Amino acid sequence: MLSTIKSPDDLKFFSIKDLENLCREIRSKILETVSCNGGHLASNLGVVEIAVALHKKFNSPNDKIIWDVGHQCYAHKLLTGRFDVFDSIRKKGGISGFTKPFESEHDVFISGHASTSLSAACGFARAEILKKTSNKVIAVIGDGALTGGMAYEALNNVSDLNNLIIILNYNDMSISKTVGGFSRYISNMRSNQAYISTRVAMEEVLDKIPLVGEIAKNKIRDSKETLKKIVYKSDFFTDLGFSFLSSVDGHNLSELFQAINWANQTDKPALIQVFTKKGKGYAKAENNPDLYHGVSPFNLKYGVVSSKNKNSFSEVFGKELCNLANKDERVCAITAAMEHGTGLSSFRKKFPNRFFDIGIAEQHAVTYAAGLGANGMLPVFAVYSTFLQRSYDQILHDAAIQNEHILLCVDRAGIVGEDGETHQGVFDTAFLTSIPNMTVYSPCNYSELRGMLNRAIYKTDGLVSIRYPKGPEDALVSGYDDFDCDYRLIGESDIVIVTYGRLVGQAIRAQKSLINAGINVAVMKIGKICPIEKSILCELMKFRKIFFFEEGIKRGGIGEHIISDLVELGFNGQWSLTAIDNSFVPQSRVYSALESIGLDYKSMTEKIINNCVKLGSDEVVTVNERG
Amino acid sequence: MLSTIKSPDDLKFFSIKDLENLCREIRSKILETVSCNGGHLASNLGVVEIAVALHKKFNSPNDKIIWDVGHQCYAHKLLTGRFDVFDSIRKKGGISGFTKPFESEHDVFISGHASTSLSAACGFARAEILKKTSNKVIAVIGDGALTGGMAYEALNNVSDLNNLIIILNYNDMSISKTVGGFSRYISNMRSNQAYISTRVAMEEVLDKIPLVGEIAKNKIRDSKETLKKIVYKSDFFTDLGFSFLSSVDGHNLSELFQAINWANQTDKPALIQVFTKKGKGYAKAENNPDLYHGVSPFNLKYGVVSSKNKNSFSEVFGKELCNLANKDERVCAITAAMEHGTGLSSFRKKFPNRFFDIGIAEQHAVTYAAGLGANGMLPVFAVYSTFLQRSYDQILHDAAIQNEHILLCVDRAGIVGEDGETHQGVFDTAFLTSIPNMTVYSPCNYSELRGMLNRAIYKTDGLVSIRYPKGPEDALVSGYDDFDCDYRLIGESDIVIVTYGRLVGQAIRAQKSLINAGINVAVMKIGKICPIEKSILCELMKFRKIFFFEEGIKRGGIGEHIISDLVELGFNGQWSLTAIDNSFVPQSRVYSALESIGLDYKSMTEKIINNCVKLGSDEVVTVNERG
Repeated sequence: MLSTIKSPDDLKFFSIKDLENLCREIRSKILETVSCNGGHLASNLGVVEIAVALHKKFNSPNDKIIWDVGHQCYAHKLLTGRFDVFDSIRKKGGISGFTKPFESEHDVFISGHASTSLSAACGFARAEILKKTSNKVIAVIGDGALTGGMAYEALNNVSDLNNLIIILNYNDMSISKTVGGFSRYISNMRSNQAYISTRVAMEEVLDKIPLVGEIAKNKIRDSKETLKKIVYKSDFFTDLGFSFLSSVDGHNLSELFQAINWANQTDKPALIQVFTKKGKGYAKAENNPDLYHGVSPFNLKYGVVSSKNKNSFSEVFGKELCNLANKDERVCAITAAMEHGTGLSSFRKKFPNRFFDIGIAEQHAVTYAAGLGANGMLPVFAVYSTFLQRSYDQILHDAAIQNEHILLCVDRAGIVGEDGETHQGVFDTAFLTSIPNMTVYSPCNYSELRGMLNRAIYKTDGLVSIRYPKGPEDALVSGYDDFDCDYRLIGESDIVIVTYGRLVGQAIRAQKSLINAGINVAVMKIGKICPIEKSILCELMKFRKIFFFEEGIKRGGIGEHIISDLVELGFNGQWSLTAIDNSFVPQSRVYSALESIGLDYKSMTEKIINNCVKLGSDEVVTVNERG
Repeated sequence: MLSTIKSPDDLKFFSIKDLENLCREIRSKILETVSCNGGHLASNLGVVEIAVALHKKFNSPNDKIIWDVGHQCYAHKLLTGRFDVFDSIRKKGGISGFTKPFESEHDVFISGHASTSLSAACGFARAEILKKTSNKVIAVIGDGALTGGMAYEALNNVSDLNNLIIILNYNDMSISKTVGGFSRYISNMRSNQAYISTRVAMEEVLDKIPLVGEIAKNKIRDSKETLKKIVYKSDFFTDLGFSFLSSVDGHNLSELFQAINWANQTDKPALIQVFTKKGKGYAKAENNPDLYHGVSPFNLKYGVVSSKNKNSFSEVFGKELCNLANKDERVCAITAAMEHGTGLSSFRKKFPNRFFDIGIAEQHAVTYAAGLGANGMLPVFAVYSTFLQRSYDQILHDAAIQNEHILLCVDRAGIVGEDGETHQGVFDTAFLTSIPNMTVYSPCNYSELRGMLNRAIYKTDGLVSIRYPKGPEDALVSGYDDFDCDYRLIGESDIVIVTYGRLVGQAIRAQKSLINAGINVAVMKIGKICPIEKSILCELMKFRKIFFFEEGIKRGGIGEHIISDLVELGFNGQWSLTAIDNSFVPQSRVYSALESIGLDYKSMTEKIINNCVKLGSDEVVTVNERG
């Protein structure tokens, strides 16, 4: 049945029975595809009925459906004409694992980071009102995403948006177990209401719904359990301006339909609290939704083997931080709902008093860290580069001005691969180094990460960052141990490749290829990429040609800092800067992305060979020679 | 009495009568000083009793008092040893108008931007618990600052911080009138509780307080009015983990003392809702707190003359946007609680349906704009440069990736003067230009601002920013009208001064001085500073010496972008870049700050003269000549 659905219109005449079967098919397809390609699983299995109900009851794309953290969009994609290409999800050139307007008119807004859907939905809804349409705008947001401050900012601004419907998907679980009081508040809504008053309220509402009303009313009188699923007047949400419907079973299509009918009738913004189970329909994922949040390809029968972060920078970071915390009681660890991803699981177990999962709240994380630091602790905030973008002002205003000694451990720095544009960690080099008082280290292997962690905490003043990539170290460069010096020069030449972090391995490979091709080049690996030390500049002044390669955005990156300083010192050699140039990096495997930007060793080699044409046997001269 | 207070210890033995007199003295001193120096007035007059009560009851700096948006800290400063230097507030070299740890041990955390105090307080409180002290941590935050998402993120993380006390100062007014549902929710707490149940609750609490209890209990029974000021069980705040005390009169020291006693006794984080009046004690400010929020020097007797934004870039922007909105129904304006400051007051009056004050919620503002833009509107977010730092991720993730056509009007770009480090608008050049798909215009006068506004909306694709400084245009350059070309070259030479925005006037002056000194220089003024057009690079390639001046941070700024591109093209002339170099710019008048960085025309002139020593009569040669 699923394969025949070319657009949401095809759902319109399906019976509930048909739709329930459809849900099963969708789950099978998701399981089959994700077990093959990897991707987000538990969240997608949890929202199948919600997706089906929304596309049955609304008319996308006239009605706009906006999925928070777009990784819960798989069922939506299957229902909106992408069944045939679903196998390509998260692959190079394939469809995205997130909502993406370039891909389909049904993906009305981009979404990769959490907590953005309500603000976007407010914008869409306001525009519909200004255009005087009767279109509805629906946002689907999980309780995890509600820990992010910008979701509250939006809740605070729904005012008269009576075409706005928010589905609050309470699944008791964000990426890590949702912490915090607001989650408790929402959870409590289920139970603490007297039956009688709620039944009255429910009946009042149902009375307004013709036809459906009478049947539902009787059903409610009959079932004590169902009574709990009631219209519930929350002072909080009603004062925010919502009509609020609580405790809808998110796996029951009939209940979802009723809830949507109710929402369509209210003359206020509607908020529907839905309960779902992450991983629904695949027992292994239901029992361990955290493990099945984002998965690599796995065998459906045997399930995912928990090897997350084994042999990775994240794991090495987590272990070393435990070592440090063991010796120093001031060391604290903070994560924004990424305990496992950032390698902090052991830390949490060993030092529960000094471990803080603050939810998807990167702004709070940094200022909380600054408070801890200002009061004598040694806080370490481990965070993915892309999510740290949320903290720019807090790093600058709350930490840098007073030069607090806090440590930002920037994981997934550089290309991250299949998550694509929204998740690439390629801006931290620019935004962190624009901030005064900031020191940034960039290890090229595990040993340097360990060393730099120590150096950052005990031998560096003020605000410090360490950036390291997703995945394992490059075995070729595992021997370097330059955490205590700011740079190292490898080889001798008047031509030099300069780089840092993961690209050091590529540079060393390029160096070998070039020597084989008769072109002698040196490699400078930089470990302390901000501030740029005078010693690095002095060393670079000696070269005739500098080829700088950077796994980050070109504008504002390390390369630009260095060349500006060099030219001011009088450098008049040749300069070439390869980095991400005014563009976003689409999904693909990491190495493939590096290739497309020209950051793999083959591209490096080629660039330098093309530039340096061997004319005589003993001289390398330059095409486009300067001066 | 006030002049004798050298530290908060001096308050400890004052009677309530004395303290009430002290409050009067503090108000006089604040009025006298602010009317003379300018500064924040209404908010400071509103929190005098709170400051006195906190310093009477707690022991700063062992107990930590954290003021949100530190501009409400004047009474605190007067009570913590800064009476003698209070006249220097906001002046160059003087004390700051915000809390500043470098200035006093009683200013435990920096604060200039709103909504940060709760996160910082969580950090401080956690550190005290880890250090096993009995110190208390107190945050004072207004209802306006509670519209910022990071305040919620912190509220969501108070959990077991039983040494944390939050004073929620409800003054019914943030910088602009607070909008939004949460404010309504808090406000409603005053009235919708039955007296009887609340009296019982209050008595229970009071019973736990020895001595004071009996007296207070009787007093409560006697006074119906006082009954309203009660312990109030809020599902929301109690579920967040707080003990919650509502409706305390923030101008009544006895009530404040009782509330503090109560908070000290609870075994949970305490939240005290206090009602105050902005401008308290100065009728003119009470009646028009918005006008008296931040003021220039004024006559106390006659009050502030409402001339805000008269003759300023903000005013010109607001007028031109009205013109555009008049002709084009898609044009919408968004402000984050800065309607007056950003020049949008007329717009609000003329187009109320298309005007949105979304509170101090810059994250929401941008994504809301992106939603409006994606759905056919032309949203314009007018915002101070320094506050736009909060939106970095939203600009990048929610607007730039899908290249939404939204307009960021970046007011107060560059040096802002007396507000100092926390408010300088000197990072937007770096953080905005690091974002792909971004176009940035930089007008040097009103005419260019108007033209660029039109160009941005109708002749530019995707994401656009226009940055312009605080205050009026420079009359010297008011004649330029280059909004439609990317740059203009003024004069002929092989030496060029390159700059943009406000500094164009300084560059033209420097050019004149240099010509008088016998050194002929050209000036290139750039209007489109991002992306840098090839035509600009080609033009610059012709010069032998480039002196780049930038009213922004050096790292990641326009200068670095340009020189990197130039050198890659083969430029081998001389390069000098003057910008803000890895430091924050302290408070002083704008021009004085420009001087200290070397961005005024005299410094420009001097720099170039020092570099170019006239040896012969017909030749200018260069010291430190390259190549």
